[in-house]
Amino acid sequence: MKQHIIEPRILKGFRDFLPDAQIIRERILSTLEKVYRRYGFVPIDTPILEYTEVLLGKGGGETDKQIYRFEDNGGRDVSMRFDLTVPFARFMAGHYNELYLPFKRYHIGKVFRGENTQRGRFREFIQCDFDIVGTDTASADFEILQVMVRSFQALDLSRVTVRCAHRGVFNRFLRNLGISDRSAEVLRTVDKRHKIGTAETRALLTEFLSDDHADQIVSYIAPEADNQATLKKITALAGGPDEDSLRLETVLDLACETGIDSSIVLDPSITRGLDYYTGIVFETFLDDLPEIGSVCSGGRYNDLASLYTRQHLPGVGSSVGLDRLVAALDELGSFSENVPSVEVLVFQIEQEHLSRYHQIAEMLRVKGFSVEVFPEAKKIQQQFSYAEKKGIPVGVICGGREIQDGVVNLKNLETRENREGVSLDQSAAVLEELLPYRQGSVT
Amino acid sequence: MKQHIIEPRILKGFRDFLPDAQIIRERILSTLEKVYRRYGFVPIDTPILEYTEVLLGKGGGETDKQIYRFEDNGGRDVSMRFDLTVPFARFMAGHYNELYLPFKRYHIGKVFRGENTQRGRFREFIQCDFDIVGTDTASADFEILQVMVRSFQALDLSRVTVRCAHRGVFNRFLRNLGISDRSAEVLRTVDKRHKIGTAETRALLTEFLSDDHADQIVSYIAPEADNQATLKKITALAGGPDEDSLRLETVLDLACETGIDSSIVLDPSITRGLDYYTGIVFETFLDDLPEIGSVCSGGRYNDLASLYTRQHLPGVGSSVGLDRLVAALDELGSFSENVPSVEVLVFQIEQEHLSRYHQIAEMLRVKGFSVEVFPEAKKIQQQFSYAEKKGIPVGVICGGREIQDGVVNLKNLETRENREGVSLDQSAAVLEELLPYRQGSVT
Repeated sequence: MKQHIIEPRILKGFRDFLPDAQIIRERILSTLEKVYRRYGFVPIDTPILEYTEVLLGKGGGETDKQIYRFEDNGGRDVSMRFDLTVPFARFMAGHYNELYLPFKRYHIGKVFRGENTQRGRFREFIQCDFDIVGTDTASADFEILQVMVRSFQALDLSRVTVRCAHRGVFNRFLRNLGISDRSAEVLRTVDKRHKIGTAETRALLTEFLSDDHADQIVSYIAPEADNQATLKKITALAGGPDEDSLRLETVLDLACETGIDSSIVLDPSITRGLDYYTGIVFETFLDDLPEIGSVCSGGRYNDLASLYTRQHLPGVGSSVGLDRLVAALDELGSFSENVPSVEVLVFQIEQEHLSRYHQIAEMLRVKGFSVEVFPEAKKIQQQFSYAEKKGIPVGVICGGREIQDGVVNLKNLETRENREGVSLDQSAAVLEELLPYRQGSVT
Repeated sequence: MKQHIIEPRILKGFRDFLPDAQIIRERILSTLEKVYRRYGFVPIDTPILEYTEVLLGKGGGETDKQIYRFEDNGGRDVSMRFDLTVPFARFMAGHYNELYLPFKRYHIGKVFRGENTQRGRFREFIQCDFDIVGTDTASADFEILQVMVRSFQALDLSRVTVRCAHRGVFNRFLRNLGISDRSAEVLRTVDKRHKIGTAETRALLTEFLSDDHADQIVSYIAPEADNQATLKKITALAGGPDEDSLRLETVLDLACETGIDSSIVLDPSITRGLDYYTGIVFETFLDDLPEIGSVCSGGRYNDLASLYTRQHLPGVGSSVGLDRLVAALDELGSFSENVPSVEVLVFQIEQEHLSRYHQIAEMLRVKGFSVEVFPEAKKIQQQFSYAEKKGIPVGVICGGREIQDGVVNLKNLETRENREGVSLDQSAAVLEELLPYRQGSVT
């Protein structure tokens, strides 16, 4: 009569999250959301599944192979979203008349790509995007940088550097050199500087440029001693001040005047891909973990939704990859002093007092604690073991005698410190003493 | 040169959520999470996409047509999850050795079904499940009921009734009548009582049962004046007390002794489907909106993960449908006194003072307000209009003169109440006065 057992496997590149990991992920997301909201960004959501035509445009092209694409039961050609930018463009075009401009949105959601998992890539992962569309201003550019810096500070990752550059200034510099036609190759090469170093970058450039042009580019992309000096140099190399260099200057001034300039470096080697961005571009590196790469990147684009509408929608935005952030926080030991997910376990010592145990639990919850009652009167060692595995720091342990006397015994399950015969009125205060991170938080 | 425009359409049964709607959805979810956490439930997450074999079991059967199922680029037969129960079963089987029992988890996530959209059904929707597995006890049954009641109270939906019954007691009653072989039809018919009324239920029963049996069933399923009387009646009709009736009694006692009994009704006509549940079952109705049906349902099952493991995992759990809850809160006018998503707009009156505007905004954010700076020095009427559309209640309006004097003008944009020449030190306190829901909240 035994039935066949199906192996409980999951797809490669997809993941389960057990409570300890999921709690950290939720805490990071909720911290980010609080910062976004504090700066006036509001949330949206869009479907996981969309028409393939909408997500890929007419052609599709190279991305195609990485897309989860299929025909649904109604014969429609559908795909799972592979980023949050394309759905946002479609969203802005579709809801243009219900919205207002500038529109500041954030969007946290799962995206799907059939990546090669051998490179440690995931096929399902969470992105957190925030953008300001409908305004082409230094104020908006600056605000995105500001939110990035403040987000990492809120995550206790204050040692962070946002490296920014301006695609317009770079392009004018290349025009000045008379090598605009090679700009794609130049951008692609320069983008490698952080990985391969300046000498190697120069060597690669000389493969398709003259030594003089390579030298000028190497000079252009090297940050100077401070942002002002870098700005002055690239402005001169690009042929003098113009709208783009003035925009950069204003953004850097705003950073100074709001005190975030120590986290901002003007780094002309930052290019961010080839087509999409038209203005400021930026990447974010953790000073203590530069090797994991950019944890938050983005830039200004000229027109978000031209595939779907003739409305012109310039914007600026940035995207955080949750996985890289989790890895970084883990590596740096942040979040290591974890607030426990459950604070108190009420032991079930004698089954006949079950309702009393539930009353005690409920009383403590009203005082703001997270509390559970062990559901069976199992051996006390099993209940201790449960508390340990779940990381519950305090136990309420009382049998018939304590219940008769209207008191409880409280035990710090880690230090084994006991507080016996505590009256119910006093229990919240004593609990607070047993939970060090709690000091002063009981309401 | 104009390119073809792709219509920014979305799939039928799928939805975009604009900020106002998304904010409410997030607030509901975060309220539910807080309650779950307070009762010791911890979060997990699982993939949206899984092996079809894992989600559907060997056969598949009727559910099949509603599943988004396809072959991925690696030739695997995959499906998008259609609920959170099957992935939870697979999760428990796969991580059995990493977990502890009892395991109390909640899971909030999107699920997908190719439902007939003409019946107002959605093809992508969010479920919030919470379960306790690894213990077959009254304490766990009760705790699920308790979390349900407390969840709705936390959402300001205190006028709620959880209707519960016990499948075991009902089955024994049918055995006693000698009609166990008709139990599927009986359960299916009885389940309709709330929609069609008692007389019609009896008529349907007599189509396949004797008048006497139909009368006995109608008598069994009618709640009495109070839960004790109902319990006494069904216990007698089932042949006297046994383990199942004692379990029900203990659960009801716990409800009394923790003060949630006024929200719990023993209603023997609740059956919840045919196969899955084996013990207590429940549905939750809003007293002011019974017609929308159950907003939270569940019950006890004998073995969660038998498809994937020989480990025996009894459990009890419940599931909240977010959409129904949103509809109810909307209908009842809850959440209507909305806390605004952004509290303060700093107007950009003169572009030359942009950095000052950003400084003021940052100062107010440090005081705990949600603030944005209008990114362009547009006509003041356009900035007013932006604030109105976004629902921002207060404006900070200052030109060169105020900036020189180190003061700000604050304006309640709804009442047009002005506070002029407020010093920066005083601005947080004055803002608090202008934001009534804020009283006493500034840190």
